[in-house]
Amino acid sequence: QSNVTVYGVADASFDMVKIGGDAKNELGNTNRVSTNSSYLGFKGSENLGNGLTALFQFESGVSFDSAGTLSTNRDSFVGLSGGFGTVVLGTLTGPTRALGTALDVNPGATGIGANAGILGKLGNRLLGSTSATGDYAGGSTCARSSSCQSIFDNRWKNAVAYVSPTFAGVNATLAYVANENKSLHGLSSANTTGYDVGVKYSGGPVMAAVTYNAVSLGNAADTKVADLRVGGSYNFGPATVRAIFDLARADDFGGAKFTQAVYGFGATFDVTPATKLLGQVYVARDVKRNGTSQDDSGAKLFEVGVLHSLSKRTSLKATYAMINNDKAASYDFGVNAAGVNTGSLPGGASTVGATVQGISLGLRHTF
Amino acid sequence: QSNVTVYGVADASFDMVKIGGDAKNELGNTNRVSTNSSYLGFKGSENLGNGLTALFQFESGVSFDSAGTLSTNRDSFVGLSGGFGTVVLGTLTGPTRALGTALDVNPGATGIGANAGILGKLGNRLLGSTSATGDYAGGSTCARSSSCQSIFDNRWKNAVAYVSPTFAGVNATLAYVANENKSLHGLSSANTTGYDVGVKYSGGPVMAAVTYNAVSLGNAADTKVADLRVGGSYNFGPATVRAIFDLARADDFGGAKFTQAVYGFGATFDVTPATKLLGQVYVARDVKRNGTSQDDSGAKLFEVGVLHSLSKRTSLKATYAMINNDKAASYDFGVNAAGVNTGSLPGGASTVGATVQGISLGLRHTF
Amino acid sequence: QSNVTVYGVADASFDMVKIGGDAKNELGNTNRVSTNSSYLGFKGSENLGNGLTALFQFESGVSFDSAGTLSTNRDSFVGLSGGFGTVVLGTLTGPTRALGTALDVNPGATGIGANAGILGKLGNRLLGSTSATGDYAGGSTCARSSSCQSIFDNRWKNAVAYVSPTFAGVNATLAYVANENKSLHGLSSANTTGYDVGVKYSGGPVMAAVTYNAVSLGNAADTKVADLRVGGSYNFGPATVRAIFDLARADDFGGAKFTQAVYGFGATFDVTPATKLLGQVYVARDVKRNGTSQDDSGAKLFEVGVLHSLSKRTSLKATYAMINNDKAASYDFGVNAAGVNTGSLPGGASTVGATVQGISLGLRHTF
Repeated sequence: QSNVTVYGVADASFDMVKIGGDAKNELGNTNRVSTNSSYLGFKGSENLGNGLTALFQFESGVSFDSAGTLSTNRDSFVGLSGGFGTVVLGTLTGPTRALGTALDVNPGATGIGANAGILGKLGNRLLGSTSATGDYAGGSTCARSSSCQSIFDNRWKNAVAYVSPTFAGVNATLAYVANENKSLHGLSSANTTGYDVGVKYSGGPVMAAVTYNAVSLGNAADTKVADLRVGGSYNFGPATVRAIFDLARADDFGGAKFTQAVYGFGATFDVTPATKLLGQVYVARDVKRNGTSQDDSGAKLFEVGVLHSLSKRTSLKATYAMINNDKAASYDFGVNAAGVNTGSLPGGASTVGATVQGISLGLRHTF
Repeated sequence: QSNVTVYGVADASFDMVKIGGDAKNELGNTNRVSTNSSYLGFKGSENLGNGLTALFQFESGVSFDSAGTLSTNRDSFVGLSGGFGTVVLGTLTGPTRALGTALDVNPGATGIGANAGILGKLGNRLLGSTSATGDYAGGSTCARSSSCQSIFDNRWKNAVAYVSPTFAGVNATLAYVANENKSLHGLSSANTTGYDVGVKYSGGPVMAAVTYNAVSLGNAADTKVADLRVGGSYNFGPATVRAIFDLARADDFGGAKFTQAVYGFGATFDVTPATKLLGQVYVARDVKRNGTSQDDSGAKLFEVGVLHSLSKRTSLKATYAMINNDKAASYDFGVNAAGVNTGSLPGGASTVGATVQGISLGLRHTF
Repeated sequence: QSNVTVYGVADASFDMVKIGGDAKNELGNTNRVSTNSSYLGFKGSENLGNGLTALFQFESGVSFDSAGTLSTNRDSFVGLSGGFGTVVLGTLTGPTRALGTALDVNPGATGIGANAGILGKLGNRLLGSTSATGDYAGGSTCARSSSCQSIFDNRWKNAVAYVSPTFAGVNATLAYVANENKSLHGLSSANTTGYDVGVKYSGGPVMAAVTYNAVSLGNAADTKVADLRVGGSYNFGPATVRAIFDLARADDFGGAKFTQAVYGFGATFDVTPATKLLGQVYVARDVKRNGTSQDDSGAKLFEVGVLHSLSKRTSLKATYAMINNDKAASYDFGVNAAGVNTGSLPGGASTVGATVQGISLGLRHTF
C-alpha cells in the first residue's frame, strides 16, 4: 500500500488577448494556449498516535502548454499536526496570499481575470518572489505569458508556518520567512526576512479574515514593505458575495515611501445546479509617494464569466477580463500576462496606459 | 482509489560512437551511456456520462544518464473525448511528427538509428523547437548527446489538436499552434504560428497516411516553412515493411527558397517469437536553393539491429547505425547526437562531411 | 495494478548557522529552512523468469524549501539482476561515495554535520560533479545553502555499474564512467572518464569495506584524480561505532601533485528504544603539494546530536555541528553550505580560516 497520493489539476484554456490603446501601442489579437496554474502534487500523512500526525506535500506548477519543468514551486512542506495546531516548513502560501486567492471568484484563483493582476503591486514596484536563498531584489517587469504577481501574492520560500487550532470558528496563522542570505557585516547584499500573520473566522455562510505581511528586504537602503488585507465572503446558497481591501506599503524604497490602496468585489450566482455566473471588479487607487497621489497611476480589473460543471471534477469555463490602466500605469494580468509590463520594448514602442483585454475558453480537470 | 496512473519507459544503452572521415576531423571512439527518449508520465481519465470523457496527461522526457530534469516536454494535455472526436490542448505531437515516428523501426522511435536524424532537416536549417512562448528563431546546431531533430519532428508547444472519429479505418487530425509571441505592429520579433494536418488509414495489415505541417515563423522576413509526408506500412505477420517520403521547404529563408526531399525504407523480421531483426535506410537528397541543387548537401542513414524480448515489458537491443554525410553536409544522429553538428569547433577543426557511426547495446523496460 | 512505487523522504530543519572568526569576517546568525537531501522517487521491478529481474529507479533530490526542481539527480537507472549479479546504467552512486555515506552517523547522511563537509575535498580543489555530458572542469567554490561536496562524494553521470553476488558476506562493485565528451584529436577540451571499485564485507555486527575511485579529467594537462577509502562499523546493539580513512590525490593538477588524508570516527548510542545520541569527528590533514605539507590547510568537523523516533517512518532530530578551519582553509558544510567557500565576497571581506557553526532542529519523514 502506497503512502503517497498523486493529485493535481489540469486546466487549459484557449485565450485571445489584446493590448490596446492608441496606434502606437496597439497589438492585434494574440491567440494562445494557457495552463492557468495547473499543478501536480505528491502528498501523504502518517498517524503517529497520541493525536499526532506527520504530513508532507510536494507540489509543482505545471505549464504543460510550454513543456514546463516540474518542481516544488507550489506549497511544499513537511510538518506535524496535533492538538497544538500544525507546524510546517518549506515553500508556503502565507495567510495574506491565501486571503487574496480565497476571495477570487475563479476556481483555483487563476486565469486572466484573477485578482492577483491588481492586488498588492504598488504600481509594479513589488513584482515577483524571493530567490532560492531568500533574497528579494525587487521586480518591476513580467514576461509575456508569465505569472505577474506581487511579492505578497507569491509563495514564501524558506518559510515556517504555525496554524492554530480552530476555536469557535476562529483560527490564526503565523508564517516566518528566514533570512538565509544574511550578508557580511557592513556589506549591502540583500537579506530578506519577514512574517505573515492572519486571523480568520469561518462559520455557516460567513468567512472573514484580516492579514498582515511585513517584509524587510535587508538591502543597503533598509527597505521595508508590507501589505494589510481585510476581507470576507457570504454564501447565500445559490449566490455568493465577497469583498477585500488591500493596502500595500514600501518604506525607504528608492528614497521615498509609497502606499497604495486596492479594493475589490466579487459575486457568483448559480443559474442552474451545474452552471454558475461569476464576476469581479478590482480597483487599484493611485499610488501615493510620500503621501501625495501620483496622477493616473491606478488601474481597474473587470471580469465576467460562466462556469459549467461536467462533473464534480471537470468543468468548462468562459470568461472575459479587462484591465483598464490609467494613463501612467502598466498593470497586466496576474496569471498569463499579456505583455504590457515587459520593460523595454523594441522600436521605442510603449504600452503604458494600455488597456488589456482577453477572452478565455477553457477546461479544468481535477485528479 | 487514485485517479492517476504513473507510467513510463526506462531505456538505457551503452553506445560506442565515432565521427570519422579524414585525419582532420576524426575522433576516436566515444563511449557513453544514453537514455534514448526514456520517459515518466502521469495520466488519467474520467467518464462524464453521455459518451463524454475528460482526459489528461503530463509526460516528461527523462535523461536519467545525466541527472536530467523532469518536465512536461513530451505530449502533455487536457481534453475532452466523445462522439465528435477528441480535442486536447497543451504540448503535442502533431500528425507529421507522429507519422515519422510510427514508421521508424526502433521501439519508441529512439536511439542512434532513429529516422529523425535525417527527416525534415533541410540541411540543418530547421533544427530545434519553439520556445515556451511559441517563438522559433531557427536552429542550425546541436550539442553533443542532445536531441537533434527538425522543427517538424519536435513537439508543438501552445497547441490545440482535434482528432476525428474513425470511419472505415480513416481518421484525421488537425493541430493548430497559437501565435503567443505576437509582436507589436511594425516590429520584427518572431510570431510563430502554424498548423499540422494528417489523414490516416489503418485496417488489417495496412497503415497509410499523408500529413502536412505549415508554419509561419512570423519574423521580419516573413519566412514560411512546411513539410509534407506520405508513408505507410504493411504487416506480413512475422515481417513488416514501411516507407516514407518527406518534402521539407522554407520560403523567404535567408533571402531564398530551399527545398529537400527525403525518402526512407524500413523492415523488421521475427527470427523467433522473441527475437526480431530490424533495419532501415533513409536518404536525404541534395538541398535545392531556389530550385537549384546544392552539390553534396545530402546524407544517408543506415541502421541494422536485433531486438530480443525478455518479457512483454522488457527487451534487449543491439544496433549499428551510420550517417554517411555528403562532402558538404553535417547531419548527425537525431537522438543522442555524436557531435558533428556543433557549430564552431575548437582549433579550427571541422566535421563537415564526416561519417558518424555507432554501436548501441541497450535495455528497454516499460512500466 | 501499478508497476510503479512512489516513495521518498521529506526532511526539513530550522538551522541557525554562523560564520565566525575575527571582526572582518564575522557574520551574525543566519536563520534558514533546509531540506537536507529530501527526495522523491519512482521505482519498480519485473520478474522475468529464470531468476532474472528487470529493475528501474528515477530519483530526484527535492529542495522544497526553495521551490527546487524535480530531476533524476539522485540514483536513477535501469538494469538487470540475476544469479550473475546486477548491472545498471544511469546516474549512480559509486562504491566510494556509498562508503562515505554508510559510515555517516546522520540518517540519510545529510544535514550540516554530514561527513561530506570534509571528505575528499583536497583543500577545495575537487568540488562539484561532472556535467551532463560527463565533462569535469574542476570546482573550488560552493554557493551558500548549496551542496558542497567533492567529486568523489557526488554521483556519477553516464555510468555503468556491476554489483557482484554476495559470497560469505563479501561482494564487489565496479562502476565505469563513460567518456562522453571525447574531444577531437589534438584539442584540449575535457574528456573525463573513470572507474570506481569497492569490496565490502557485511556479517553480523561487522561491516568493512575498501574502495578506490580513479578519474582521468581528460584535460590538456592530463590531470588524474583519485580517492582511496577504508572503513568499517561495528554494531553493539544499543550502540554503534564506525571509522573511515580517506586519501585523496590529484596528479598534474595546476602543475603539481596534491594529496590529503582525512580520517573520521563516529558513534551512536540508544538512550531509550526511541532516542539515539550520535556524534562524529572528522579531521582533514594539511594538504601536501609535491609531498610537502601546506601549513594550516586542514580542518576539523565535529557533530553531536540527538534523534527521537516518533514512528518507524518519522523522527525528530537536533544537532550541533562545527567546522573548525585552519588559518588557510575554507571548508564548509557538505550539505547546506553556510557560505564560507563562495569565492569572491563583496567589499574585500574574506572568510578564510573562519569557524562555521550551526544548530539544526528538524523533522524527517519517510514515505
